[in-house]
Amino acid sequence: MVEKVSLGTMPLIYPIPIVLVGCKANGQVNFATFGDVGLMGINPPLLFLSSHRDHLTTDLIKEAGIFSINIPDTNLLEKTDTCGIASGREMDKAALFEVFYGSVEQAPLISECPVNIICQVVHQFAIQHRQLFIGQVVETLIDKDRVVEEDGKLRPKGLEALDPIFYALDNRYYRSGPAIGIGYQTGKRQ
Amino acid sequence: MVEKVSLGTMPLIYPIPIVLVGCKANGQVNFATFGDVGLMGINPPLLFLSSHRDHLTTDLIKEAGIFSINIPDTNLLEKTDTCGIASGREMDKAALFEVFYGSVEQAPLISECPVNIICQVVHQFAIQHRQLFIGQVVETLIDKDRVVEEDGKLRPKGLEALDPIFYALDNRYYRSGPAIGIGYQTGKRQ
Repeated sequence: MVEKVSLGTMPLIYPIPIVLVGCKANGQVNFATFGDVGLMGINPPLLFLSSHRDHLTTDLIKEAGIFSINIPDTNLLEKTDTCGIASGREMDKAALFEVFYGSVEQAPLISECPVNIICQVVHQFAIQHRQLFIGQVVETLIDKDRVVEEDGKLRPKGLEALDPIFYALDNRYYRSGPAIGIGYQTGKRQ
Repeated sequence: MVEKVSLGTMPLIYPIPIVLVGCKANGQVNFATFGDVGLMGINPPLLFLSSHRDHLTTDLIKEAGIFSINIPDTNLLEKTDTCGIASGREMDKAALFEVFYGSVEQAPLISECPVNIICQVVHQFAIQHRQLFIGQVVETLIDKDRVVEEDGKLRPKGLEALDPIFYALDNRYYRSGPAIGIGYQTGKRQ
């Protein structure tokens, strides 16, 4: 048995995906960096977002009922970190990017991010100072050069091509390493 | 403007953390592989888990109100994939691991996983066939050789030492690459 030590109640889950959340309400467009996001299911396509109740993002999403998730690649590391430091109440973060729109006017999207996901809020609740939004995907866009066609369907390339930024609780950003296995196959050799 | 194409409503968030969720009720211990987990906030320390309503894990967590998150390293890739293929209704997955307990009897933990997190369910709800559990961390344990002491406090080492498995929607498992920046600092150079 490996010797274990306690880290108190640290929510030490990793890796943490890093995304830029977009929202638009009351004439204001904002982007903010989030790590407290994740997949809640593929069918129905659900994502969640946890936002501090005092953040501008929380106000704008409550107003619009819509948000976007824009996934940067490592070329956007500096701007992504900037969007986690500065508040949209003090800085026009939309000016950092080329902004465009898909099928929903309240969901500003970042052209430079390889993947853009529009989510409609289908459930929300508060736990202490956190506002938790459950979003159902309305539309997913991806750079044309980051997909492959397989069996007549477009599919995203692997993480080498998407080149995401992720984070861990040592306060470092990381890039992905190589693929090491195939889902629902690697374990059949047991 | 980069040319974009549609992927329909694919919930294409990445990277997806891969964990082994442990639970215990009605005399049964089970472990199952999950990617639909994530961080919901550091203070209070909240994590979420999304489970299909028909899975044994859902029944056991509903009964116990407690679950564990055990984070494997890449040495455990085959067993981790196995725990995503086989149902606990047909296979004793606890037999694959050295199981131990922390401060909570209903939270079985995996010794071979570098990090073990015990969560108490503080909120749950259903969306279609998904049961969504919000867990508040009760206790976090880590292998003694994966921490560093800084300013008199234990902190987890970086991802090189924790060596997680993560996943993406190309159905591949990946390992981490190197650190590329520091949170709340890299963007100050802008």
